[in-house]
Amino acid sequence: MSIRVGIYGYGNLGRGVECAIKQNDDMELVGIFTRRDPSTVKTALNSKVFSASSVLEFKDKIDVLVICGGSATDLPTQTPELSKYFNCVDSFDTHAKIPEHFNCVDKTCIENSTVSLISAGWDPGMFSLNRLYAQSVLSDSCFYTFWGKGVSQGHSDAIRRIKGVKDAKQYTIPIESALERVRNGENPTLSTREKHLRECFVVLEDGADSVAIENEIKTMPNYFADYDTTVHFISQEELIKNHSGIPHGGFVICSGKTGVNGENKHVIEYSLKLDSNPEFTASVLVAYARAVARLASEKAYGCKTVFDIAPAYLSKFSAEEIRKNLL
Amino acid sequence: MSIRVGIYGYGNLGRGVECAIKQNDDMELVGIFTRRDPSTVKTALNSKVFSASSVLEFKDKIDVLVICGGSATDLPTQTPELSKYFNCVDSFDTHAKIPEHFNCVDKTCIENSTVSLISAGWDPGMFSLNRLYAQSVLSDSCFYTFWGKGVSQGHSDAIRRIKGVKDAKQYTIPIESALERVRNGENPTLSTREKHLRECFVVLEDGADSVAIENEIKTMPNYFADYDTTVHFISQEELIKNHSGIPHGGFVICSGKTGVNGENKHVIEYSLKLDSNPEFTASVLVAYARAVARLASEKAYGCKTVFDIAPAYLSKFSAEEIRKNLL
Repeated sequence: MSIRVGIYGYGNLGRGVECAIKQNDDMELVGIFTRRDPSTVKTALNSKVFSASSVLEFKDKIDVLVICGGSATDLPTQTPELSKYFNCVDSFDTHAKIPEHFNCVDKTCIENSTVSLISAGWDPGMFSLNRLYAQSVLSDSCFYTFWGKGVSQGHSDAIRRIKGVKDAKQYTIPIESALERVRNGENPTLSTREKHLRECFVVLEDGADSVAIENEIKTMPNYFADYDTTVHFISQEELIKNHSGIPHGGFVICSGKTGVNGENKHVIEYSLKLDSNPEFTASVLVAYARAVARLASEKAYGCKTVFDIAPAYLSKFSAEEIRKNLL
Repeated sequence: MSIRVGIYGYGNLGRGVECAIKQNDDMELVGIFTRRDPSTVKTALNSKVFSASSVLEFKDKIDVLVICGGSATDLPTQTPELSKYFNCVDSFDTHAKIPEHFNCVDKTCIENSTVSLISAGWDPGMFSLNRLYAQSVLSDSCFYTFWGKGVSQGHSDAIRRIKGVKDAKQYTIPIESALERVRNGENPTLSTREKHLRECFVVLEDGADSVAIENEIKTMPNYFADYDTTVHFISQEELIKNHSGIPHGGFVICSGKTGVNGENKHVIEYSLKLDSNPEFTASVLVAYARAVARLASEKAYGCKTVFDIAPAYLSKFSAEEIRKNLL
């Protein structure tokens, strides 16, 4: 019997989940729930669209609801509220607020006998798993996370808010020499500036002052001031042609020592190179939706994270098959 | 309270486990059990050594027994037999016989209310986990495993058995151009010869025929005939000086597609670069020993593999700590 999945919220991530469900033959999409007028939403695969306000009517028709809202304002209220009625998966990625979000969702899940998994995706998500596995195996170790090359939506938005900027795209780029030092097991202390570069492609409004804008970008606190930042002014056509994608990725590198006196060095490296950040994130959410459906059928109620899920729960193949073919 | 660990078998792997336990302050080593005369065994850290025949006297003093025998003849009998009395961890790595070994150990564990985890290490082990995670997240994907650069004990032994060979060391080396094609997401079909090279360092007995020996190595079925093999004849001094280590490592690379028509490509890469193959393997065994102790306290009896263990069970830190610091 298929796992019946609903999508709550339809932006880039919801669209990615819609496509990912189609790639998994043990799942079916019940419908997409939107706060917009459903008749105005054009989906990637002509899926059914319903009003978000009607979602409770689907209480017994959906095994797992994948919530595709944003971490800033949507998920902190949506995941606890929807966990009253549904098993849920979200991609909550405000690192500092994860403990609070967890406790809030856990309480709801326990009270309502549901299972919800928070903070799935690649960071938090696959990167978190690699940090945990590496640190657990190599006790005497340091780990480093690098992001990119990839588009940061938050930084792109920050540039677009500057007066005189028509459009912009910002890439976060890990610094190769820092990566090499970490890979060599040097365990360097790296400042923010030594880990990542920021490269900006900016389209100006007619008559805007490029020198002033470049300066405003490079000195913007929190976003750019602590980084070496390059600004390129280009035409809107060039931005559309060369910078329309939303690629991302990064590296988790852990180096540690073993032996009688730490005489042997080991380096564990995990990397992602993603053409589409939201579609990969969506693929992770869908794999964890499978795990959530199974945990719910086992009545393992409560809030979970990727740390709590045995890897076998993510696979559509049986325990025998994965032992035979993947172990 | 510390997790009380025993080591059964004391070769390179047992020595690695001895050192790894010292790196984990939530564990203590109860003793090393050997089939040799205990008084003849010199350990790395002056640990207590007992006769293997006395292990049953420690039934209530050991929480987890890490079995450090070989996969060919030791583990198929040792793990099922010792699982009657102890929770065990082994590194059984004969891929084709894993289902049989699993079933045998599982039966014993269920009958005797113990938990044993088989096939821990890096392959099987960490590499298996990465194959499973990647395949579960990217449904439309191919994965590849490459090994090396590293020492293959089996291939080194095969060379040493040739008449006229005094000593030898064999390195397995992944072919860079094949790695690149996989990283580019080409999903190539690669023959055995296209994936790995074999490089041999050989010390000859006095008067041995180097041409005949080089030919015998390169044409040896199963071991070398299907590979491009390089043979270097060197002195015993040079072998000791430059080739005494037992490094290893490798790569698991998965590339997959997402989107409406598979228009976006993603590459997941996991790699290990290990100065000491047995010490890293030992570190994995010890992390899984922690998980086994916890599962036993939850009475989750039976045989397990790395696929069945939620990552949080490997960490000495609490669920709250890992959510706060690693997620």
